[in-house]
Amino acid sequence: MSAADIQLDDQGRLRHFIAIEGLPRALLTQILDNAERFAPVGDRTVKKVPLLRGRTVANLFFEPSTRTRTTFDLAAKRLSADVLNLNIEASSTKKGESLADTLRNLEAMQCDMFVVRHQVSGAAHFIAQQVAPYISVINGGDGRHEHPTQGMLDAFTIRRHKQDFTRLKIAIVGDVAHSRVARSNIQALKILGVPDLRVVGPKTLIPPAIDAMGVTVYDDLDEGIRDCDVVITLRLQQERMQSALLPSAHEYFREYGLTADRMRLAAPDAIVMHPGPINRGVEIDSAVADGAQSVILQQVTYGIAVRMAVMAMILGSQAQAGAA
Amino acid sequence: MSAADIQLDDQGRLRHFIAIEGLPRALLTQILDNAERFAPVGDRTVKKVPLLRGRTVANLFFEPSTRTRTTFDLAAKRLSADVLNLNIEASSTKKGESLADTLRNLEAMQCDMFVVRHQVSGAAHFIAQQVAPYISVINGGDGRHEHPTQGMLDAFTIRRHKQDFTRLKIAIVGDVAHSRVARSNIQALKILGVPDLRVVGPKTLIPPAIDAMGVTVYDDLDEGIRDCDVVITLRLQQERMQSALLPSAHEYFREYGLTADRMRLAAPDAIVMHPGPINRGVEIDSAVADGAQSVILQQVTYGIAVRMAVMAMILGSQAQAGAA
Amino acid sequence: MSAADIQLDDQGRLRHFIAIEGLPRALLTQILDNAERFAPVGDRTVKKVPLLRGRTVANLFFEPSTRTRTTFDLAAKRLSADVLNLNIEASSTKKGESLADTLRNLEAMQCDMFVVRHQVSGAAHFIAQQVAPYISVINGGDGRHEHPTQGMLDAFTIRRHKQDFTRLKIAIVGDVAHSRVARSNIQALKILGVPDLRVVGPKTLIPPAIDAMGVTVYDDLDEGIRDCDVVITLRLQQERMQSALLPSAHEYFREYGLTADRMRLAAPDAIVMHPGPINRGVEIDSAVADGAQSVILQQVTYGIAVRMAVMAMILGSQAQAGAA
Repeated sequence: MSAADIQLDDQGRLRHFIAIEGLPRALLTQILDNAERFAPVGDRTVKKVPLLRGRTVANLFFEPSTRTRTTFDLAAKRLSADVLNLNIEASSTKKGESLADTLRNLEAMQCDMFVVRHQVSGAAHFIAQQVAPYISVINGGDGRHEHPTQGMLDAFTIRRHKQDFTRLKIAIVGDVAHSRVARSNIQALKILGVPDLRVVGPKTLIPPAIDAMGVTVYDDLDEGIRDCDVVITLRLQQERMQSALLPSAHEYFREYGLTADRMRLAAPDAIVMHPGPINRGVEIDSAVADGAQSVILQQVTYGIAVRMAVMAMILGSQAQAGAA
Repeated sequence: MSAADIQLDDQGRLRHFIAIEGLPRALLTQILDNAERFAPVGDRTVKKVPLLRGRTVANLFFEPSTRTRTTFDLAAKRLSADVLNLNIEASSTKKGESLADTLRNLEAMQCDMFVVRHQVSGAAHFIAQQVAPYISVINGGDGRHEHPTQGMLDAFTIRRHKQDFTRLKIAIVGDVAHSRVARSNIQALKILGVPDLRVVGPKTLIPPAIDAMGVTVYDDLDEGIRDCDVVITLRLQQERMQSALLPSAHEYFREYGLTADRMRLAAPDAIVMHPGPINRGVEIDSAVADGAQSVILQQVTYGIAVRMAVMAMILGSQAQAGAA
Repeated sequence: MSAADIQLDDQGRLRHFIAIEGLPRALLTQILDNAERFAPVGDRTVKKVPLLRGRTVANLFFEPSTRTRTTFDLAAKRLSADVLNLNIEASSTKKGESLADTLRNLEAMQCDMFVVRHQVSGAAHFIAQQVAPYISVINGGDGRHEHPTQGMLDAFTIRRHKQDFTRLKIAIVGDVAHSRVARSNIQALKILGVPDLRVVGPKTLIPPAIDAMGVTVYDDLDEGIRDCDVVITLRLQQERMQSALLPSAHEYFREYGLTADRMRLAAPDAIVMHPGPINRGVEIDSAVADGAQSVILQQVTYGIAVRMAVMAMILGSQAQAGAA
């Protein structure tokens, strides 16, 4: 069973959000349209709507991530849900309880949604297959697989600035091989119709079969970003800098660091994105990260609107299913 | 002063919930009846009632327990209370503050209720004696003494399945000596009128004077569960498995592990309970824990309803006292 | 730019609350008057007002403090705000993110207020200078600089008991040199018109130029508290007891510990205060800390009302600014 099969109910509505791969373009567009409706909530004095009042959202973080957990936490609270923040690593294994038993217990507590972050690819899918029918799972990042809400918030940011996906040249730069963000971005942008999608990086950090996903591979940064409307830089994990895959952070910056000079090769109105946290002076120069073309902080803001949209769509369709 | 004296106000209403020992049957029945009214809340889309809006519940966990803390947290949130989760071990001792000073400070913050989990027997009682008159204490488990909400949720689970306590044969199997759950179960089930209550386990794990509590002691599992309507298995703590009291986990399972074969000795419609977390293959076989007779996950669900009932009863009587 | 400049908007309304130094007396009086209005909320059954519903308050604690965090948390919740509790030390540095990037991300999540606790003097001011115009900063204690809500809750406690600041003799006793509480107290009480303000302690713990703040220095406790209406004892940090500045905790208590005997030198109706947590038998004797003249626990209670007042004033003026 592919992730796509498990994600939609028999009316084609979102039931889990595990991966962007395989979802129909109409559904992605619906997420973006709903996020447009939630975006103004964050600008209001009362940043709260009563949509999910009395629902219970459990953040199950097997891998720590303050930033992602915080944005899911805020998204749920702004929808008026009750939130449980559980550091599963610390809690479940201490008493020798299995993951399955931990999940069944949370189900028995009548949670409505699990947001799952896990270092193992496929963990969110596995959990979605296991859980009771009244529980929905959102993947908050699983290993090197996908980080679908990040993929959608990136698409939302691009649409806000560039409107029509079908005319864009977009480059994804950096450690594509180890990046679930890159994978979700590629899936989303291909489905949404981006005609010229490129991945740029040293050969050691580009998966060999990536062109099967419909992208063009560049190992030269100048070539890769030339005339692009959007440049998405990826975080270089610190463990990668110390590995044999790369000579050094300094050398990486010389070859693949995004500088103001290099950005002149992109389209004049190009935007620069990054999923954060930024390694300044490694994958991106501060002048670019903080410059006029950067939309990096907008991505964070839009991330809450996109997560609100996904949660509301999923728990809304759950409610209808329950009423039926 | 016994726990019973401190628990009831002069109208006989629940003021603290420290121990089941000494409480009148009518009060236990009232808790069960109120829990019946709260149980449907968890099944609704909006799992929330406004009963304790604006009340402050502080979870004071001196001993970590994600599961118990989470169910109290959810119970309070579903009653619309504000919840403070405090890991007291970490916070108070660091600055050399005494327990008494920590409690007085929380009182001064105008909390309404402390849920106390502590490794020392009597800790919740001690705290209830110390606190200001406007604070109520719920014992979330103290040493080897009692875990009264667990006792009541077990009684609730049994009543849901077996209705009339006065016709039942019930066996409690395992490490009775170190189990506050067993102690609360015995108190609750004796008060509620169970005529045939048995404890089953190796002599090293059965307290010598336990028959004074009105139970029959068995050291043979087959004899102990024969014809029982309910079999409650207890968790075998890992430190016990390594102690001199037991030969090994493997041997324990051979003698006292609940298997499908053995369950055939119990009544045909017997239910199997466990307070969790389960040690599969130690005190219970997976085939039984996950089988048709198991109500282990229902216990978790009912636990929230029972905790909501106890919190609402206590803070409701507090409110009336305040209004008088 | 001084802290005072950054704290007020061009209408003279409170925008940040970083330090008491430089604020006008009318503003401090307004905080005290507003706190009077919030104080009854904590006595009610429903301890909640809807003033900050839908606002997001982030507690950024770079230095752990359960007590201060908890009172800010409760103050925000009783104003109906949503609260994020972030242990910044643990989260941001792990991934090598700079403080500035962490703050920008929290801004992008559309928080309304940061409560900042930091071990470095000036940190809250620095952050207030950096943040987006729609974010307000409250200093929850920065190094040895100020702890302005503590200063105001102390002033509130004094006013409740002694009404007119302009007739009072007040002694601040102990480690003034390392105490942000002492600094905020001195600022607040001078601005509010206390004519006789004294600091009392060993020469090694009194800053040399402190008399420039308008206080009289005493190194003899008996002289220092003679006829005082208020005696504020300061916590002696444990690291100080082990340092070369002091002979020993025992000797400190003999010279500067507040005992019942010594309190007879103060005015007969004098009150005793302490910011907590108390070192019993070091800076204060239990007979005094728990005695009839002690208002130490009232300080904790009033602290919530004062923090509610400050939060409501700041976010209220923000809302008006937003509406304009």
